[in-house]
Amino acid sequence: MTGSTPRRVERYRGDAREGRVDSLVTEAPLEIRIGEAPIAVIMRTPGHDEDLVRGFAITEGIVAGPHEVAAVTAVPRYPDDNRWELSTTVAVDPGQFSRNFYATSSCGVCGKASIDAIRISGATPPHGPLVAPAVLRSLPGIMRGAQATFEATGGLHAAALFEPAGDLLALREDIGRHNAVDKAIGAVAAERWPLGELVLMVSGRVSFEIVQKAAVAGIPVVAAVSAASSLAADLAEEMGMTVIGFLRDDGFNVYTGGRRVTS
Amino acid sequence: MTGSTPRRVERYRGDAREGRVDSLVTEAPLEIRIGEAPIAVIMRTPGHDEDLVRGFAITEGIVAGPHEVAAVTAVPRYPDDNRWELSTTVAVDPGQFSRNFYATSSCGVCGKASIDAIRISGATPPHGPLVAPAVLRSLPGIMRGAQATFEATGGLHAAALFEPAGDLLALREDIGRHNAVDKAIGAVAAERWPLGELVLMVSGRVSFEIVQKAAVAGIPVVAAVSAASSLAADLAEEMGMTVIGFLRDDGFNVYTGGRRVTS
Repeated sequence: MTGSTPRRVERYRGDAREGRVDSLVTEAPLEIRIGEAPIAVIMRTPGHDEDLVRGFAITEGIVAGPHEVAAVTAVPRYPDDNRWELSTTVAVDPGQFSRNFYATSSCGVCGKASIDAIRISGATPPHGPLVAPAVLRSLPGIMRGAQATFEATGGLHAAALFEPAGDLLALREDIGRHNAVDKAIGAVAAERWPLGELVLMVSGRVSFEIVQKAAVAGIPVVAAVSAASSLAADLAEEMGMTVIGFLRDDGFNVYTGGRRVTS
Repeated sequence: MTGSTPRRVERYRGDAREGRVDSLVTEAPLEIRIGEAPIAVIMRTPGHDEDLVRGFAITEGIVAGPHEVAAVTAVPRYPDDNRWELSTTVAVDPGQFSRNFYATSSCGVCGKASIDAIRISGATPPHGPLVAPAVLRSLPGIMRGAQATFEATGGLHAAALFEPAGDLLALREDIGRHNAVDKAIGAVAAERWPLGELVLMVSGRVSFEIVQKAAVAGIPVVAAVSAASSLAADLAEEMGMTVIGFLRDDGFNVYTGGRRVTS
């Protein structure tokens, strides 16, 4: 299975109709198990599944970092590699996660996120100047260039991790915004940890859950091509993170944490 | 609380920086309870919350239709109307839903959706011609016109329900794609049921879960401004539904169920 699936479609233009074959972005479920216990099912675009499982384990707080991931393996003979097993070096209660995303989301039910519920892994991110405006403005172009090497199905979100000087460490695409983030984080975390010097950039907007995932992974700067939500900015402010929106070639908006942008 | 929240931002253009006040799309958690039992927390844009709760109850199969919803009420004195109680006319086991979305998603884990898991409410949708190509091409413009009356925060998804002749029944916006669908369905279902003659249109793309929600609500035609995923098309085909993508003023693609488009 790959990132796109051919499918015969009927294409209407004005009053004319023709049959043709289109490439659809592939969407397929991936199940994560710890031992025999399923802990999550994610609708994702196949590819970089090992990154996805590792990143999900980190950003959902199942493990404190990549050092607690013993192995990520596709369950043999399961169709299309849709079932993966996560082995950890620490004891994990699968029951905690099968009652799963209710707990994750509910920490914000009163309108203020419970910071206590979010555990920052790794070292404390630096609070001083980190990224120059010119570097930030260069990121969308770098991201577009890297995306061009992927298949163009018109339905993918992208996420990328950058060095503060603008070097691209990993870019991943997926039909799910959160999956693209988890894949990018999972890819980089396999090589280095902590991530406290890096910039996470996403192709769409920044919601509460994107900031939450970055916070749990210890990434201090989140940038987006599109807007930030109110709760994303609030959470980032409380966490001492930096959120940048509408990042384009000619400018950007800083919603909070401007001290990390050099002047 | 409203759909947008003012926030002071720093705006960078080239080497210039200025402070200004921006409108951010509001994101806040909404908790749904049945009696005392919380069954879901949804990150949503406040507004039309009653529609959201009713629509969610329908599209997630908690009730078989709006006739099984006795009342949807904000829990008094809870901040920002972020906690809602759903009362049903039939017995519902809250425990079934607090173990919640795992079950919903996992019906597709082998790569083929389990049709048995999706219950079509109401009458069987008509299988013959339903919508004319010219009507379909008119929907994006109608949707844009209706959206223009909403606040422009740059971060909202939209969903709308249309009569087959192109009359707009309801349009709702939300930071969450699924929430916009639930709000539109909840709004219309309060007035009429079943929905087997209607067209659901979404501003983004069509994923598996959007088709699944439409299927459970008994809506036969799903159209989108952007692409459809492979699994969305597969599920719609198995369900005998119609999926249309890249719907623009000058044309569209039909992925499955073309018999409902008049020629």
